[in-house]
Amino acid sequence: MSALRIAPDAKVMLKHGAGGRAMRELIQQVFIGDAQPPADGGIGLAAMDDGAAIRAGGQWLVMTTDSYVIKPAFFPGGDIGRLAVSGTVNDLSMMGATDVAALTCAVIIEEGFPRADLERIAASISAACAEAGATIVTGDTKVMGRGEIDGIALNTAGVAFTRRVIPDCGLRPGDKLIVTGTIGDHGLAVMARRHSLDLQGDLRSDVAPLNGLIRRAIEAGGEQLIAMKDPTRGGLASTLHEMAHKSNVGIVLEASRVPISASVQAAGELLGIDPMHAANEGKAVIAVRPGAEDRVLAALRSHSYGRHAAVVAVCVAERPGFVILDTGFGRRLLAEPEGELLPRIC
Amino acid sequence: MSALRIAPDAKVMLKHGAGGRAMRELIQQVFIGDAQPPADGGIGLAAMDDGAAIRAGGQWLVMTTDSYVIKPAFFPGGDIGRLAVSGTVNDLSMMGATDVAALTCAVIIEEGFPRADLERIAASISAACAEAGATIVTGDTKVMGRGEIDGIALNTAGVAFTRRVIPDCGLRPGDKLIVTGTIGDHGLAVMARRHSLDLQGDLRSDVAPLNGLIRRAIEAGGEQLIAMKDPTRGGLASTLHEMAHKSNVGIVLEASRVPISASVQAAGELLGIDPMHAANEGKAVIAVRPGAEDRVLAALRSHSYGRHAAVVAVCVAERPGFVILDTGFGRRLLAEPEGELLPRIC
Repeated sequence: MSALRIAPDAKVMLKHGAGGRAMRELIQQVFIGDAQPPADGGIGLAAMDDGAAIRAGGQWLVMTTDSYVIKPAFFPGGDIGRLAVSGTVNDLSMMGATDVAALTCAVIIEEGFPRADLERIAASISAACAEAGATIVTGDTKVMGRGEIDGIALNTAGVAFTRRVIPDCGLRPGDKLIVTGTIGDHGLAVMARRHSLDLQGDLRSDVAPLNGLIRRAIEAGGEQLIAMKDPTRGGLASTLHEMAHKSNVGIVLEASRVPISASVQAAGELLGIDPMHAANEGKAVIAVRPGAEDRVLAALRSHSYGRHAAVVAVCVAERPGFVILDTGFGRRLLAEPEGELLPRIC
Repeated sequence: MSALRIAPDAKVMLKHGAGGRAMRELIQQVFIGDAQPPADGGIGLAAMDDGAAIRAGGQWLVMTTDSYVIKPAFFPGGDIGRLAVSGTVNDLSMMGATDVAALTCAVIIEEGFPRADLERIAASISAACAEAGATIVTGDTKVMGRGEIDGIALNTAGVAFTRRVIPDCGLRPGDKLIVTGTIGDHGLAVMARRHSLDLQGDLRSDVAPLNGLIRRAIEAGGEQLIAMKDPTRGGLASTLHEMAHKSNVGIVLEASRVPISASVQAAGELLGIDPMHAANEGKAVIAVRPGAEDRVLAALRSHSYGRHAAVVAVCVAERPGFVILDTGFGRRLLAEPEGELLPRIC
């Protein structure tokens, strides 16, 4: 009996870059294949974590890379430069490596790109590095012809040493999940800007380097802080799905506990975008063993980037791999974004 | 008396990505500014070397990044995947770090890009990694809309540990310069392909990971091997200018000793491109103290990628910062490419 096989898409589509299931499958099929995890207990490509970890003497060298193609390059609350530094610092931080050893920065620029904009971006990179205590140690510059790239793309890679690597898995029933603040700010701010939506209030991207915040959480949580992931593309919904899937637990998310600002809520309704599915660039999801949530929460709230931190979910044995949304009126499965059409959000 | 100041270009132009003086100045002015070298003797952004070196216990962690936007993505002798792995392995090798600890790979894809091409590129990345003994440990995938990027762009960053960092400076009068093989193959192969020039012969890119070759050279040369640089964008001419400039020596290049294949010579004449200015992706320029050249040369020639290695130049005290071309009929200054118009050559 031959199983029905669905042929993979013959072309790459926007959904393959959207942080959802389509992207996971493409990466799995094309880039990972049957790659094995490193023999020394490190974290490699096959883990599809925020970054990798390789042994370096008695420590781990954590390493990550991300390209940034956000449109527009300047948006309320930040720009592509701050985004690139923050994104890479945050990926390192999510693995427990909050002392950033070095960053690289490679830039691809369209011919005709205004030099003044490039200078603004470079200044923003410097400021974000200063905030994170990080240094760009090497770089690369490429120029493409007019119309060959839309403006500018950045890539940052980063390395950091740490004694303990924190994965994005290992959750057990009873574990609590904390979000470090309001959800959906980056995605909605960028989409509102792209649609020239002029909303009252403070709709701004949350883009920020989180290593200082995460350092406090790790100090407070110790070994009871067991996993972290930043809810970037695909938003909180996608991140919780990945965590549920990797740890083979169910996750019950209490809708009423998820911090969402009024302006994000309003913009989400106008644009038809669920804040749960919208990208964050200055937030983390932190899993702790039961009993540790209060001290981690207190540590987070002592930092300006963690003032609105909240426990939002609990892991359960039922429905492993799924996220159950408790709306207060009932429970339903939260859909995993297959590949929502928010291209160039980061 | 006020000096006449030439205003910098208000827009980024193709020459700013071509590996010549315009690119050096843009990077200096926009990205480096008054950045200081690291206090611990490491190599940072300000050095504008092939990569950076930061202290890691008793060793150095060498780090590099490059983006690749070559057009076409598939060319005689290789493709963008082999190029990305080789380029990063070679930058690490040029700093003396031939044992590659890990690579990252980030890909930006245009919507509609054929999946089969992506799979070919992924396979090519794997094969080049296997040849170099390197592993991609983490990655990133972004998709841009149709017309927002021309096909595909890759970024690879790499790290390697080494006890000794080899810089691209420190040359003294009397030092000898070796090239590890024929010059201009990559640049001319790509340009010929782009112009649909159907040349007889073996006009193929030399793209290859050089860490095995360079390991032999370092073993043979020891402390007498003092500097290395790979002549990529801007070719041998640009690389020699950088070396002369950084070490404040003159470099006398003997034209008749520079290995150039007949097909590169022919294509260069047809296309009006001097092979001295054309990119190489599988070659190195190695500086040795006088007396060490023969044993380094022998070591290089024992490797398939170094069969045509030759001593091509000597450092002199005269004309510091300049490259003097000895044609056999006389001597003239070799022009530094200001920013030749060979966009997207790597």
